[in-house]
Amino acid sequence: MQWADISRLKIGDTASCELLVDERSLVAFAELSGDDNPLHMDENVARNLGFPCRVAHGMLALSAISRLIGTQLPGPGSLWISQELKFPAPVLVGDALLARVSVERVSLAAGLVKLQTEVRKRGSDTIVLSGTATVRIPHLQNPATTPHE
Amino acid sequence: MQWADISRLKIGDTASCELLVDERSLVAFAELSGDDNPLHMDENVARNLGFPCRVAHGMLALSAISRLIGTQLPGPGSLWISQELKFPAPVLVGDALLARVSVERVSLAAGLVKLQTEVRKRGSDTIVLSGTATVRIPHLQNPATTPHE
Repeated sequence: MQWADISRLKIGDTASCELLVDERSLVAFAELSGDDNPLHMDENVARNLGFPCRVAHGMLALSAISRLIGTQLPGPGSLWISQELKFPAPVLVGDALLARVSVERVSLAAGLVKLQTEVRKRGSDTIVLSGTATVRIPHLQNPATTPHE
Repeated sequence: MQWADISRLKIGDTASCELLVDERSLVAFAELSGDDNPLHMDENVARNLGFPCRVAHGMLALSAISRLIGTQLPGPGSLWISQELKFPAPVLVGDALLARVSVERVSLAAGLVKLQTEVRKRGSDTIVLSGTATVRIPHLQNPATTPHE
């Protein structure tokens, strides 16, 4: 496992992952959060509100950003401090998404990294999440302790 | 079910819910998102990074805001448009939280509502999430269609 290491980060470093927003993930998030807004859960309601089918929870797109930050860039050990985000277009059930984070600023002294965060529909220019995240990289007190390696 | 109805919202309207961040919710979110950052999953790593025990994913606190918006205030039909948030203190596994949203501004013409969003540790002044959300309330094309009632 590659620990988050602020000294190795450079502006422009980028990581990405894919995400399929399917029935299973919608139901799993509704159960986990208690958010069973019928816009997400009921096809008739979604159509009646003007959408072609059910709209996914915005947090499913954001969950891919959480994954990138916690596992890839900056990676294991990272602590999310703040996030600004917009959902410019709805994610629909069945959408395949491409999430990306890229390093915008590195504050070595403060141990803070600012990232651009974006999620698009795959193979399309449609942005479903845009924003910025600030992440703190805690100091590893005993770098020899890497139980997952 | 009470649909989101922007004409009935008043500045200061508030809704709240409780949330227990336990082992089960941590594992469920790690599986759903793919975010298995050892800060969240491994007690030894969390201690080595300076925390008393595992830190929960920030999105678990945010999921309670998603629930309040989608089910209580503004409620069913609401569409999350944007969110600014800070995580001023970490949520630790086992924490009981109290989430709250309150109406800060209502733009009837635009169909938009701005909410203050906050999550605290229960019975404490420790704020673990603070910020604001903007929510759009789509126009119900056929108000008679309320399949969940």
